[in-house]
Amino acid sequence: MARMHASARYRAFQMTKTSAGNFFEDYRVGQIIDHAVPRTLTEAERAVYTSLYPCRHALQSSDEFARQCGLRRAPLDDLIVFHTVFGKTVPDVSLNAVANLGYADGRFLAPVWPGDTLTAISEVIGLKQNSSGKSGIVWVRTTGRNQHGEDIVRYVRWVMVKKRDQTTPVPQTVVPDLPTAVPASELMLDHGLTFAGYDDRLAGETHRWDDYKIGEHIDHIDGITLTDPEHMMATRLWQNTAKVHFDINVRPDGLRLIYGGHIISLARALSFNGLANAQSILAINAGTHSNPSVAGDTIYAGTTILDKARLDEPTAGALRVRLIAAKSPVTSDKLKSDDGKYLSDIVLDLDLWVAIPV
Amino acid sequence: MARMHASARYRAFQMTKTSAGNFFEDYRVGQIIDHAVPRTLTEAERAVYTSLYPCRHALQSSDEFARQCGLRRAPLDDLIVFHTVFGKTVPDVSLNAVANLGYADGRFLAPVWPGDTLTAISEVIGLKQNSSGKSGIVWVRTTGRNQHGEDIVRYVRWVMVKKRDQTTPVPQTVVPDLPTAVPASELMLDHGLTFAGYDDRLAGETHRWDDYKIGEHIDHIDGITLTDPEHMMATRLWQNTAKVHFDINVRPDGLRLIYGGHIISLARALSFNGLANAQSILAINAGTHSNPSVAGDTIYAGTTILDKARLDEPTAGALRVRLIAAKSPVTSDKLKSDDGKYLSDIVLDLDLWVAIPV
Amino acid sequence: MARMHASARYRAFQMTKTSAGNFFEDYRVGQIIDHAVPRTLTEAERAVYTSLYPCRHALQSSDEFARQCGLRRAPLDDLIVFHTVFGKTVPDVSLNAVANLGYADGRFLAPVWPGDTLTAISEVIGLKQNSSGKSGIVWVRTTGRNQHGEDIVRYVRWVMVKKRDQTTPVPQTVVPDLPTAVPASELMLDHGLTFAGYDDRLAGETHRWDDYKIGEHIDHIDGITLTDPEHMMATRLWQNTAKVHFDINVRPDGLRLIYGGHIISLARALSFNGLANAQSILAINAGTHSNPSVAGDTIYAGTTILDKARLDEPTAGALRVRLIAAKSPVTSDKLKSDDGKYLSDIVLDLDLWVAIPV
Repeated sequence: MARMHASARYRAFQMTKTSAGNFFEDYRVGQIIDHAVPRTLTEAERAVYTSLYPCRHALQSSDEFARQCGLRRAPLDDLIVFHTVFGKTVPDVSLNAVANLGYADGRFLAPVWPGDTLTAISEVIGLKQNSSGKSGIVWVRTTGRNQHGEDIVRYVRWVMVKKRDQTTPVPQTVVPDLPTAVPASELMLDHGLTFAGYDDRLAGETHRWDDYKIGEHIDHIDGITLTDPEHMMATRLWQNTAKVHFDINVRPDGLRLIYGGHIISLARALSFNGLANAQSILAINAGTHSNPSVAGDTIYAGTTILDKARLDEPTAGALRVRLIAAKSPVTSDKLKSDDGKYLSDIVLDLDLWVAIPV
Repeated sequence: MARMHASARYRAFQMTKTSAGNFFEDYRVGQIIDHAVPRTLTEAERAVYTSLYPCRHALQSSDEFARQCGLRRAPLDDLIVFHTVFGKTVPDVSLNAVANLGYADGRFLAPVWPGDTLTAISEVIGLKQNSSGKSGIVWVRTTGRNQHGEDIVRYVRWVMVKKRDQTTPVPQTVVPDLPTAVPASELMLDHGLTFAGYDDRLAGETHRWDDYKIGEHIDHIDGITLTDPEHMMATRLWQNTAKVHFDINVRPDGLRLIYGGHIISLARALSFNGLANAQSILAINAGTHSNPSVAGDTIYAGTTILDKARLDEPTAGALRVRLIAAKSPVTSDKLKSDDGKYLSDIVLDLDLWVAIPV
Repeated sequence: MARMHASARYRAFQMTKTSAGNFFEDYRVGQIIDHAVPRTLTEAERAVYTSLYPCRHALQSSDEFARQCGLRRAPLDDLIVFHTVFGKTVPDVSLNAVANLGYADGRFLAPVWPGDTLTAISEVIGLKQNSSGKSGIVWVRTTGRNQHGEDIVRYVRWVMVKKRDQTTPVPQTVVPDLPTAVPASELMLDHGLTFAGYDDRLAGETHRWDDYKIGEHIDHIDGITLTDPEHMMATRLWQNTAKVHFDINVRPDGLRLIYGGHIISLARALSFNGLANAQSILAINAGTHSNPSVAGDTIYAGTTILDKARLDEPTAGALRVRLIAAKSPVTSDKLKSDDGKYLSDIVLDLDLWVAIPV
């Protein structure tokens, strides 16, 4: 199948030079989308990120700590990488999205260093029109690459996208077969990373891989009340242009919807208190933005340990964690009501593999 | 004429060590003002800038893209340079300004790289006391320089400045002769910049110089609702200290007036959607902040193509564009009412030359 | 006495992996606390800082200006260093603080350059239980170090900390003997710093050491109205996690208390107007956060010259200044009512030594 360049699509709208984004009928399974605007990331994105989230994981905070762990310097936070790549896909994938439905099979493949330039490419891997005929679900597998052409992150997400014209034919339904979780055997620790000389004292906590039990629940205690300027700055930092985050005239309620990634970063940063040694994210197994957030909400986080695995590197283990963000303290792992729907204060249900010293 | 150093003027106010700024009668045609506080700019100013505006032009976003275009790395955004130089002039030129009336003959002369240090100098080139006797118009030509003493930007602006004492003599009126637009033959493309290997796909759109017609109008669609913290951060980033942007006690309505440059940057960034390939600003031909903006306003942008020209570099052309920012979508190029006054929702009328691949 | 690692204390709370911070009875005189999470600082922290405060001191603004003054480049602002070190101590010292009572004997010992990594260590030097039995005062001497193990800042602060259990024994009272001010003979100018080639014009004012008289009062004129996003970003920039700054549910009034350091930085930056040549802070002799601040308050600054001293470097002098921040213009040095209490609009009373060209 020929590649559909963003540029080619834009030409279709001859009435204007601006892009109205893609609609459901613009996607075909197998289609490759090259996303626009490469981005060079530096220590500066880290500094802005640190001002926006209470991040303290030592591996990304300190070049010296990273060197002690075998790296040449502090890599950029995994979520800086994820958001940057995600942001590139928004104009092509989710500008007309009704909802960002989920993530799966997300893998961090290599570290990103200050000075690296990232690009993103997506393949459409699934399509399913809704019974209403007004919209459909689009699955894409997105890959982020650095300037050397190395893949640095890859993940699947699916979104519900409006149809431009309800009379266009219904495409054949293709629902991709997605793993519940990335197999532990496929997790990739940053090349050279070792926790042999790891200093718990500098990292902030003594709890290591052995100290966490499957089923254990951690309430991360701290909360942060959201404001509009902060989430807009964060969203723009990733060159994510979805209107609904910036323009009070887009929604009938006059509120700016907060980018789901803002909540992910907040929850990850808040999880330091209790998971300070979970130094990097290895995989995003699954993720759901279960309810929207707006300015004025106060976000808290909690974690349940779902699974444990050893890694090839003998000093490192992996924890599979369910990271929850909610509008009230996360004191239990009950997230849904009896009818299977998320409780109204649960805003994020994220399933991750994280790396931690053994 | 002897130079008037900022420092010399301050000595005049013996009652206090602080500066109350200059008044209309402090200016003389021919006077040279050396503005204080040199500033080193880095990738970090770009990152903060990216968090404040939805900027995505590839030449400034990616070192790799810039290298493909013949530059050694991504230069700093032209407006980062403009605002930095402008900010230096505020304590000497516009601290007692009643209004920032206009810009003309603005030229970007050389790229600014991360690590460069900028200084600014102005010459008073015009004076005209108002008939009220309470204020007058001051024209200055400001030049920004890098650490090698190279001029990197030059522009004229004029402001209405209060008189300290209405009884001081009226100066001879000198109104400078300013060009309507910078002649296309004098536009300076960054040394070495070429679009020979230009990648539309990475840049985000396929529309090039040939695709734009004189008289064509582009509605850039997206809007951003303004907040106080964001415009204050932006204004401080340029070390611009005009009180009216920061202190709710300055204006009778208790509102913080938004720095006009904030609107310029917002409009330029919003113009990506429809002018993604207009990679750099070559000239500011004219500019008017036609109405004030405050937090809560939502800003939209539109462009009319005024003129086209080829440049010495055969792969690059120039578009003369009228970039409008307004508090409602810019769906027409009618900006003024029948009596010649700007419509109340038009906040910026900016006339630029931009460079775009042929 | 054995060192009490942060990590060791955390183990004590077996019910949870998260830290509830230390209480009064957890401290012993002589105890050493190694604070967690080293931090690499770069030009990016300076850029974010510049966006948050109206800072214009030339030595930190320009690499070229700093080279003219004998340094290899612009050092990071002294307060960036102070806040970073302070932030590291919060989880161990002030998470359960009822009040941050004061600072003394603060010394800036060496410059911090972009790229340096800072760690912090504290020694408990005083304890005094309050008569209520519910809390006590803890004095700590904190030292910040760079990656070479060099001490770069050292200061004493004391806080009132809650007791976990009122029935625990009252510790022996130890009140440290603290100097009213750092002796001028012990002030440390950055190695190599000279004002021999100092350019007043670039610095912004002509007032030098000789121009300031003991007892002189300077009203710094400008005011800045505080917002929640800005103080939260500032506080997080230093990885300071005290709940009360971020979560509207912590205080009964639903307000976010502003980190005292935010006010310190604001006052220092505002003091440029009248003290532009006070290029660096040599010592924090004393400091009191006399009243809380919240979003919506407008902060002004004023300075009284307390003392003057010459330094070993013949081109540099020191001014001892009382830097006041208040919710109204600081037009007098009357800070307290007749009963000795701070007036309600005075928020900061800070006693500094600053370096200024002779």
